[in-house]
Amino acid sequence: MDNEVRIVIDTIGGDNGVSVCVKGAIEGLKNHSNVKLYLTGHKNDIDACLSEYDYDKSRIEVIDCKEEISLHESPVQAVREKKDSSMVVGLKLIKDGKADAFISAGSTGAILAGGQFVVGRAKGVKRTPLAHLLPTSNEPSLLLDCGANVDVKPEVLLQFAEMGSIYMQCVCGVDNPRVAIANIGTEEEKGNSLVKKAYPLFKDSNIINFTGSIEARAIPYGKADVIVADGFVGNTIIKLYEGLSKMILRELKGAFLASVKSKIGAMLIKKSMKRTLQKFDASDKGGAPLLGLKGLVVKIHGNSKDGEVISAITQCVTFVENDVNGKIIKGFENSEE
Amino acid sequence: MDNEVRIVIDTIGGDNGVSVCVKGAIEGLKNHSNVKLYLTGHKNDIDACLSEYDYDKSRIEVIDCKEEISLHESPVQAVREKKDSSMVVGLKLIKDGKADAFISAGSTGAILAGGQFVVGRAKGVKRTPLAHLLPTSNEPSLLLDCGANVDVKPEVLLQFAEMGSIYMQCVCGVDNPRVAIANIGTEEEKGNSLVKKAYPLFKDSNIINFTGSIEARAIPYGKADVIVADGFVGNTIIKLYEGLSKMILRELKGAFLASVKSKIGAMLIKKSMKRTLQKFDASDKGGAPLLGLKGLVVKIHGNSKDGEVISAITQCVTFVENDVNGKIIKGFENSEE
Repeated sequence: MDNEVRIVIDTIGGDNGVSVCVKGAIEGLKNHSNVKLYLTGHKNDIDACLSEYDYDKSRIEVIDCKEEISLHESPVQAVREKKDSSMVVGLKLIKDGKADAFISAGSTGAILAGGQFVVGRAKGVKRTPLAHLLPTSNEPSLLLDCGANVDVKPEVLLQFAEMGSIYMQCVCGVDNPRVAIANIGTEEEKGNSLVKKAYPLFKDSNIINFTGSIEARAIPYGKADVIVADGFVGNTIIKLYEGLSKMILRELKGAFLASVKSKIGAMLIKKSMKRTLQKFDASDKGGAPLLGLKGLVVKIHGNSKDGEVISAITQCVTFVENDVNGKIIKGFENSEE
Repeated sequence: MDNEVRIVIDTIGGDNGVSVCVKGAIEGLKNHSNVKLYLTGHKNDIDACLSEYDYDKSRIEVIDCKEEISLHESPVQAVREKKDSSMVVGLKLIKDGKADAFISAGSTGAILAGGQFVVGRAKGVKRTPLAHLLPTSNEPSLLLDCGANVDVKPEVLLQFAEMGSIYMQCVCGVDNPRVAIANIGTEEEKGNSLVKKAYPLFKDSNIINFTGSIEARAIPYGKADVIVADGFVGNTIIKLYEGLSKMILRELKGAFLASVKSKIGAMLIKKSMKRTLQKFDASDKGGAPLLGLKGLVVKIHGNSKDGEVISAITQCVTFVENDVNGKIIKGFENSEE
């Protein structure tokens, strides 16, 4: 098939086991007629799950792997030593050009390390950022880097901005995405030394649509399409987002259970509240791509269910069909590594 | 009076004008018989507000100032040039030892600059952090630095930890406060270069009760009493905390108004919800102290009402009565500046 999109799904490492990966895979095939899937992991387990479904057997290939990478081992060491793990085998398919995209719910550290060491950076890319779509009261914003690179140079941040812009335009359909740099004030002279050096580079770039600094308090209102930060700050933002939303909702649930009166009240608001809270649900937004590699690597949440797998497949298809990597490579072909 | 606590209140720069400062001041006098207050600002306006109250005139002194520092001017320049502003005049009282503590709802930048240039650092203190009490599902945590120092050395972070511990112990009554460093993972090898260098210093310190790294997602659950970060990361945390809580609550309010059914439901849960949300209300927690100066400087929120002024007065009294500054100076007397 000419426009075939070949996607690897790592079936090990997620909290919900192989069955959600297989269920998501089957749905993904139904949604996209040009998709071919490779499932890496324990063949017996995968085959047992697959036997429950009717599907075109030529479109799913199971690759048996004897090893597993767990959350509790050193990511770099695990990736180097466990050559027959579902993750390394899957990433190797990308490296060798046998597949276009890789999806995993396994250890973030191992995915980051594997992306670097097994797949490798695309030409011209200095560092490969992990990007997350943040829910906001408006459209989602793409935050990058969410933790792959903690100490970076200003020109690396500019590359993140360029990659993020290409992603938002090609994968999320945002026209001329607004790029902001995460900062502690909106005035040009604000920032730490990294941001102060990056600001003029962003301002002078004629590739991105730079709209200035964004303070963290403005992030939840969706004031930018692409938000650039170093991996330490980005990771802090994504994790506080997750922790604080959960805590507030938990406290409110506690409040609803406080009395009979409030319990009845909670029943009446349940439906409209659920609709609001779905905004904060990441499952329909696909996973977090690690951008700038020689192929697409997507990290999905450890507790992902089949819905996340399906969204991630769609995300990979859009990414590949729009040749996002080709555009990134084209954008950076003249930059020094 | 032997144990008199002399506090300056800057009546200019807050969103709610001089009246809330005066109302808070009068209440503060009632709560603390050993307090003497200095109100800096436009004498006519202050006197007009004071005339509405019965109070011991020997306990409030009004100091007329002709100038104002606004949010829209360069903080450093404003502090240097506007010698007759309510802020500079007030800070000068601290510098000259005529007052012990200064409270202002004015420009944060100007308060930080004024703290440095007018009041000056206490002996041995390398940098003066801005500290905020963060609401959590447990007891509040003190986060510092919230934006006064963006590029710092590891030993400066350790000083922040020590000052924060003294503050939590002496002002908030937390015994042996648990200190954590804001990080992107809990393993010792995690972090950016600053945190990696600070970690062993924290670990080796026998002054603080170091409990390791805290990820941003754990912050809302109150897992540490003192959370240390550089000013860029700390400012990002405090502002995202503020922005995200507000956004989520706004979205929920929107959901409650979605239908007649949900409106009735909202009425029934109103009371128990309000109680929960009070946890997130900073007004009863005092202001944000700028620690390590030759006196106490407290920044209260720009939209503070009399409640915040009253809490800040109590906070200043506790701070002074417990000789927090003396303890900080004693802790740092052997450190190189």
